[in-house]
Amino acid sequence: MRYLFKIEYDGTEFCGWQKQKHAVSIQECLSNAAFQLTQEKVTFHGAGRTDSGVHALEQIAHVNFQQKYDLKRLKFGMNFYLRPKLIIIRDVQETYLHARFDAVKKLYRYNIWNADVCSVFEKRYVWHLARFLNIEKMQTELKCLVGTNDFSSFRDSQCSANSTVRTLYSVSVTRVQEKIMIEFMGRAFLHSSIRIMVGTVVDVALGRLKTSLKEILHKKDRKYAGITAPASGLFLCKVMYK
Amino acid sequence: MRYLFKIEYDGTEFCGWQKQKHAVSIQECLSNAAFQLTQEKVTFHGAGRTDSGVHALEQIAHVNFQQKYDLKRLKFGMNFYLRPKLIIIRDVQETYLHARFDAVKKLYRYNIWNADVCSVFEKRYVWHLARFLNIEKMQTELKCLVGTNDFSSFRDSQCSANSTVRTLYSVSVTRVQEKIMIEFMGRAFLHSSIRIMVGTVVDVALGRLKTSLKEILHKKDRKYAGITAPASGLFLCKVMYK
Repeated sequence: MRYLFKIEYDGTEFCGWQKQKHAVSIQECLSNAAFQLTQEKVTFHGAGRTDSGVHALEQIAHVNFQQKYDLKRLKFGMNFYLRPKLIIIRDVQETYLHARFDAVKKLYRYNIWNADVCSVFEKRYVWHLARFLNIEKMQTELKCLVGTNDFSSFRDSQCSANSTVRTLYSVSVTRVQEKIMIEFMGRAFLHSSIRIMVGTVVDVALGRLKTSLKEILHKKDRKYAGITAPASGLFLCKVMYK
Repeated sequence: MRYLFKIEYDGTEFCGWQKQKHAVSIQECLSNAAFQLTQEKVTFHGAGRTDSGVHALEQIAHVNFQQKYDLKRLKFGMNFYLRPKLIIIRDVQETYLHARFDAVKKLYRYNIWNADVCSVFEKRYVWHLARFLNIEKMQTELKCLVGTNDFSSFRDSQCSANSTVRTLYSVSVTRVQEKIMIEFMGRAFLHSSIRIMVGTVVDVALGRLKTSLKEILHKKDRKYAGITAPASGLFLCKVMYK
């Protein structure tokens, strides 16, 4: 029996989605909770990996169980065992889908707090930048990345993907008072790609980098891009299926 | 020299605004930071006290210093010494105002998370209630409290105010997806008054209490009202001056 889980988490205190030997991952916490509930040893297959410190409003994962379970029992039982942790199950459904291979689009949001002091309620969830950022300039720069491109310039040196070509469907930059939100819609992203795009566009907007994002894209080399923005500002917001 | 501070805090780990002997208060943290910065022993006079666990988006306090200080230095210096704590200074101005006596209106907001599971990002800042709440009914009930009334039924047994008459200017209840926000505008409120009004209207909305809020108000006795809603959902949002 395959189930699809809709999962929310505050990534601050985790080593990321993926199981690791000497650190606490979201994947491991989910497996442990499922084991406590069902006595089955299962793996949660996520739609995408999130790095250490990255949050999710809606991560999707599928799990194959030996037995059939009541959906409500799975949801509330999992939440009971996850309780002390900042991870919750928002929804559970039966499915034939593969969380990763069947995903057609993913929406990520990056939050910047653009004011001299950072709200205490936001500081775990933003990148705090005191210097004023021109969002029109950021929007214009980022738009040049939309389309099917080789994103080599915007991938982490540790990224092991075979192909560096990805499709970015859209990018939008909006400001609500002190908060700037940058939304990226794509099928999939290279490792740390969004954080490097954000770091680079901030470097360009602040004049710390003189090259445009379009030129950097064409260089196909990480060394031309800017800094990697901190993980705290990044949210996986939605995964879409056919 | 008198200065007016605009202060934001996450009240979760404090015993409230007011200084206490064996617990950490907002007032004490502010005094300590001011002392580290200026070597002056001062008291922060708040526009209103917030209880243990209650948050503030905008608390106002005045302070009398012996010396004159640069406003930017006060703001950034205070924030430097407050840094590990979830308290920040949003703004500092010179003033002739008395933070409490000159305040003409205060806006409080109470947040309820009304869904079967509570968001990990919201749980410090809401009261989680799984059973569906009818906000139209809540709005109708709460409206009966608007005006200048004796709020004896809605005050904590520990409240020491001489007069129990207060003016409530307006109440509004709105829902944005899973979140219900109840806003109270008044000149001042009795001890725990908002939390008792919220607890009572929830009891009425869920049918746990058969008396209307209007009847309870007229009883002028705490024992007729409902439970005190948890502190976590309450925010002091704004203090207005002439």
